[in-house]
Amino acid sequence: MYAARRFSGAPVKVTVIDRRNFHLFQPLLYQVATGGLSPGDIAAPIRTTLRRQKNAEVLLGTVTDLKPDAKLVVVDNTREIAYDSLIVATGATHSYFGRPEWEKFAPGLKTLEDATEIRRRLLFAFEAAEREASPELRREWLTFVIVGGGPTGVELAGAIGEVANQTLRDEFRHINPEESRIILLDASPRILSTYPEELSAQAVNQLIGLNVRTRTGLRVTNIDERGVTYLNNGDEEHIAARSVFWAAGVQASPMGKLLYDRTGAKLDRAGRVVVQPNLSIEGFPEIFVIGDLAAVVSEGKPVPGVAPAAMQMGRFAADEIRRRVQGQAEPGTFRYMDKGSLAVIGRAHAVADFGSVRLSGLIAWLAWLFIHLMYLVGFQNRILVFVQWAFHYFTFSRGARIIVGPGALP
Amino acid sequence: MYAARRFSGAPVKVTVIDRRNFHLFQPLLYQVATGGLSPGDIAAPIRTTLRRQKNAEVLLGTVTDLKPDAKLVVVDNTREIAYDSLIVATGATHSYFGRPEWEKFAPGLKTLEDATEIRRRLLFAFEAAEREASPELRREWLTFVIVGGGPTGVELAGAIGEVANQTLRDEFRHINPEESRIILLDASPRILSTYPEELSAQAVNQLIGLNVRTRTGLRVTNIDERGVTYLNNGDEEHIAARSVFWAAGVQASPMGKLLYDRTGAKLDRAGRVVVQPNLSIEGFPEIFVIGDLAAVVSEGKPVPGVAPAAMQMGRFAADEIRRRVQGQAEPGTFRYMDKGSLAVIGRAHAVADFGSVRLSGLIAWLAWLFIHLMYLVGFQNRILVFVQWAFHYFTFSRGARIIVGPGALP
Repeated sequence: MYAARRFSGAPVKVTVIDRRNFHLFQPLLYQVATGGLSPGDIAAPIRTTLRRQKNAEVLLGTVTDLKPDAKLVVVDNTREIAYDSLIVATGATHSYFGRPEWEKFAPGLKTLEDATEIRRRLLFAFEAAEREASPELRREWLTFVIVGGGPTGVELAGAIGEVANQTLRDEFRHINPEESRIILLDASPRILSTYPEELSAQAVNQLIGLNVRTRTGLRVTNIDERGVTYLNNGDEEHIAARSVFWAAGVQASPMGKLLYDRTGAKLDRAGRVVVQPNLSIEGFPEIFVIGDLAAVVSEGKPVPGVAPAAMQMGRFAADEIRRRVQGQAEPGTFRYMDKGSLAVIGRAHAVADFGSVRLSGLIAWLAWLFIHLMYLVGFQNRILVFVQWAFHYFTFSRGARIIVGPGALP
Repeated sequence: MYAARRFSGAPVKVTVIDRRNFHLFQPLLYQVATGGLSPGDIAAPIRTTLRRQKNAEVLLGTVTDLKPDAKLVVVDNTREIAYDSLIVATGATHSYFGRPEWEKFAPGLKTLEDATEIRRRLLFAFEAAEREASPELRREWLTFVIVGGGPTGVELAGAIGEVANQTLRDEFRHINPEESRIILLDASPRILSTYPEELSAQAVNQLIGLNVRTRTGLRVTNIDERGVTYLNNGDEEHIAARSVFWAAGVQASPMGKLLYDRTGAKLDRAGRVVVQPNLSIEGFPEIFVIGDLAAVVSEGKPVPGVAPAAMQMGRFAADEIRRRVQGQAEPGTFRYMDKGSLAVIGRAHAVADFGSVRLSGLIAWLAWLFIHLMYLVGFQNRILVFVQWAFHYFTFSRGARIIVGPGALP
């Protein structure tokens, strides 16, 4: 989206090809997964965003092949689209570290469908516990395990803590949602391992306030419908839980493999495409790879897979192409501008790392609030999200607490 | 919900059993189906509504059997719930007049899943037309047929007209959404046949303003993936259309048949339970049937299957039980208070029949707006819906234009 918009007014023709008709604001997916926002609140139709950009058109479809020598993209196996320059930004998906069978028991959080599925399981777990006579099974239903202590896992765990301790308070007659066990597992020695150590420690404390327990240095060895098994210092342990959510591994979209097959581009261990300093593929200066799909080094450090980096790459790649169209053939060098990192932990708590400035608690949360509202695409969405957050802040209620989708009927 | 809440403070114990965890505000389903509102905006969690009513509890589950002699309700085949009094309010579902195979090609509009499926098909049709090279197939994708000219059909057709003529304007490069053909079919001689004739005529005119054509007196004989076939004065005609939506027939929920099997209660042709003047079943004074599932006569006239009637019946049945608990055994007689009917036709148009007062156009729409906001359950929902409507009114945009769900990926 940022690349496409950067071409506004340029003497080029832009075609945006996407499998989905909307642009998803992924950083707020965990709020959909916990009933705080509706899917439509964090998704903006691509057509609306590009409506006034007359040199852009949108094509709903799946790219099924590439023919780089003929400069063609194949859509839905049938249609060929010719290009002069190609920007590939298909992102990343979950990785279950070679155990794809775990996905069924531990859904991840990458798409709107993932988010409504997690919401369904989360809300249903309390309903099932309320109906359950056996204290043991009730405890299993009220145990929630989040695998992965990065920002997504921390945000999801914090929001689940809020749901259990605040949103659902007084709503049940046979269970007490505040007795839920919410456990955040991580393989690293500490959660938020890319943050400074002091902020990791503060995050752990803020999570304890929401009744979330953190367990680190563990290696998950099995997940099934009854819970999670892991190795703790060589000892096998088991948590009996009916709800397990996955926020651990990420791998590049299958587009990386396709680029490898068609152009010989190098891939890194996570399947990401290793690009030139100007984000193009070696030997194919007209093909750029950006966002989570690209393995990029900026000033000697790998660029993290976060939204601001993807946005910067999008603008950079568009500028490269614009300069080339104007006859300036010298390739540039992408430089990542790290504006800092933020992870939110429930209502009014967060940790923020702006390099020299490190914040935690309410002030970090206010910074998070401001930045996320600014980046939400579309004027209406911003108002809607703000109204819901304001309401949520003062009442602890959540407006989108509905169990829908396939299997929604018990 | 209205019956359960009427028991507030009474010396009784109330159990609300529902398959879904939310109460759905059905009159606004068509706005979800056309991207104006999100599912969460028109659904309020039942637990939240009854949170402070200490004598009430909520059980998520499906009633699979009744044992009226033992006064037991069977939930999910396994669990028996004892009752002193039972209120059955399971409503109605679609009827395809003995042609259930049509449902696949012409989804109806009763549940949130129905609404997101209609939204998916509606939005996808424009995307498919944009991709289509053949003018003939493009025309099929841009033809929308709504079967049934009651309030639901009229409201859905009007909203689709708005989407095609206003919301999507300027968003496509190869098609013009304003060239869509939107056709409302009805078997009766006129649409909105329960309204006064002058209002039906005004509705037809208001629909023409949204580019919706009305065809009446037709009998649908077939629906498949390529369109609708119908008899027009004995001649068979066909409309080639890729999107057909069903707003025609309604039948009682399968609970009617179960009540017939277990209590011998009489059913009418639509499968509704014929009840006594106090809404109880003959021979079972402790079982009440209310809402769309009940065939009720009030002052010589059948009570229509509308939300205000169901709400009045809920309060009446609860009052009957409360009086009985207090030792007053004389059964009452339900009287329906008709407060009028309203059907909305796009932005700023509606028809309203308040008996002596008949309105159309903007003033009817304002009445509709006010009444529907008042009845929307839950304070937050009202604000959210109002913000979205205000935004929608001034910009014609729709905030929830996302294609999601099974089969969402093309």
